[in-house]
Amino acid sequence: MTETELNALLAGITPANEAARAAAHAHWASLAKPLGGLGRLETMLEDAAALTGSAELDLSRRVVVVLCADNGVVAQGVSQTGQEVTRAVAENLAMRRTSVCQMARTAHCDVLPVDMGMAGEPVPGVRSCRIAAGTADFTQGPAMSRAEAVQAVGEGIALARELAEDGYRLIATGEMGIGNTTTSSAVAAVLLGQPVELMTGRGAGLSDEGLARKVDAICRGILKNEPDPEDPLDVLSKLGGFDIAGLCGVFLGGALAGVPVLADGFISGVAALCAVRLCPAAEKAVFASHCSAEPAARIVLEALGKAPIITAGLHLGEGTGAVASIPLWDMALAVYGGCYSFAEGGIAPYTPQC
Amino acid sequence: MTETELNALLAGITPANEAARAAAHAHWASLAKPLGGLGRLETMLEDAAALTGSAELDLSRRVVVVLCADNGVVAQGVSQTGQEVTRAVAENLAMRRTSVCQMARTAHCDVLPVDMGMAGEPVPGVRSCRIAAGTADFTQGPAMSRAEAVQAVGEGIALARELAEDGYRLIATGEMGIGNTTTSSAVAAVLLGQPVELMTGRGAGLSDEGLARKVDAICRGILKNEPDPEDPLDVLSKLGGFDIAGLCGVFLGGALAGVPVLADGFISGVAALCAVRLCPAAEKAVFASHCSAEPAARIVLEALGKAPIITAGLHLGEGTGAVASIPLWDMALAVYGGCYSFAEGGIAPYTPQC
Repeated sequence: MTETELNALLAGITPANEAARAAAHAHWASLAKPLGGLGRLETMLEDAAALTGSAELDLSRRVVVVLCADNGVVAQGVSQTGQEVTRAVAENLAMRRTSVCQMARTAHCDVLPVDMGMAGEPVPGVRSCRIAAGTADFTQGPAMSRAEAVQAVGEGIALARELAEDGYRLIATGEMGIGNTTTSSAVAAVLLGQPVELMTGRGAGLSDEGLARKVDAICRGILKNEPDPEDPLDVLSKLGGFDIAGLCGVFLGGALAGVPVLADGFISGVAALCAVRLCPAAEKAVFASHCSAEPAARIVLEALGKAPIITAGLHLGEGTGAVASIPLWDMALAVYGGCYSFAEGGIAPYTPQC
Repeated sequence: MTETELNALLAGITPANEAARAAAHAHWASLAKPLGGLGRLETMLEDAAALTGSAELDLSRRVVVVLCADNGVVAQGVSQTGQEVTRAVAENLAMRRTSVCQMARTAHCDVLPVDMGMAGEPVPGVRSCRIAAGTADFTQGPAMSRAEAVQAVGEGIALARELAEDGYRLIATGEMGIGNTTTSSAVAAVLLGQPVELMTGRGAGLSDEGLARKVDAICRGILKNEPDPEDPLDVLSKLGGFDIAGLCGVFLGGALAGVPVLADGFISGVAALCAVRLCPAAEKAVFASHCSAEPAARIVLEALGKAPIITAGLHLGEGTGAVASIPLWDMALAVYGGCYSFAEGGIAPYTPQC
């Protein structure tokens, strides 16, 4: 995909359908329960109606895509484990035995591990959308070329559209890639114009010394590459990773196909932020799930204007937070589709009496 | 049950089993994922192990008890609907068609509607633990006698123990009773020594004028009854409701039987607070689910030392928030029981490297 082709696609993302949103709201209001009693579970389904264009919601088929990639910046000692862990977890994802696989079974959700660009040879059983065998170290120069960033975004868009064509009606996002909280913090700090220290956390469990090295590497990466905060593709290519770029594409593809895409934690949230910066209308496809324990996660969600429904201090990755939220969608749908109306229950609507 | 018998029962509630908690923690630490990556979903299962006395957790059978009762204070115009709605919803609960019934189906959870003391005749299909046909108006005198409060707590204890004997391993709490945010605010304000204004919200949707009337009624009730904040049964009997007293007993019964009891929103949280004030060791059986949109809900959870895992602005009642959290237990258990270990995955544990 060329950048011109990408821009043409993005121009095709339409605004949310406000009539469908209003129809979903009216349906909620007819049910025999306190108005708005299910809180954000109600507005979530209204948002889904506005995205899909219909107040009749079908979210029966769902999948979590776990985008795997390696990041050259790990050479700077920014993570507590080496790149071999990306591959090991990808192999275990292929065997469907990692944490997200267990949770996805409970949520009746398929798991699709995707190789966006892991170091080394391809892993059997992992869908290939490989751009390259890992990015370059962004403290030495851009992580990837602009053309590679466009290509990775394009792969994510194609993936989401293909899943929609296959009948999936809900896409959860996940990732695996040692070093990807570093790339996410770098991208978010630039896009949001926030201090690197504020946007950087301990990832999977860095020491104080490790955290200081991570902050230093990000600062050096920004100084070296001088990314343009007004140009998301510039920021993504210079400081991001293939996983973030691919996930950015998944959000855009969800917006094109009318399929809700669940953000997971910090990394996935940064990818959603890139998507919305590339195309503000794509916001309609972004659905929050949880707020990661990674400290900048809340800042990114606020920048997206999204509020989480789960706040359990998750910070596991792999899409676990997004998948954890799926049963809450199921419960909201069960009430939306199954609760009796005020009329059926012989109850006057709960309207203020004074 | 007499108060002496109640106190004898409470003296039998043992401290949490710290060895079982440590065993559950050690099991989590062996799994191939970031340490503590599932956040409070991990500590939740550790707490359950400490309660049940075993790191082998079985939560396969679960039930939501929905305690229904009427409150005399509605005569003061503190709610937007009349007492007839308690009965109408109880009838629909008996037919398993209310919101919580739809959600419980998704969560593979049974629903048990319980009459703790509704106005009028018993409702067919609703389990009877009736103390009386509603409480008295607490602005005129005590809502119930101390003996009735003890009786209601005793009914709740007996209910939880019976459910445990029937094989239930997780009890979600719910309630239905017009006027029960008023009684809950009154009880919480006294027990926590907080201003009535701070502890009082709009319930199912009061207007400004209705809210002012609600605050005024609570203030008059406190002045009239002079409850002793150091004596939970005094507070409960003078300002509470049969639903709150019964739920207080369910938490105590869960502590006696070693079965986790899920708090729901504000009303259920106030009941848990009463339980912990009656017997601090009962805290081990209290598990938070969500934080209700009712403003004092957070204050009550903080007083209990519990953090919610869902924050979606729910305020529906019926136990919907507690039931909404059950699939998160299932997901935590799926990882706890099914994720591969570091050893099996050929991965070195993620320990800080510097």
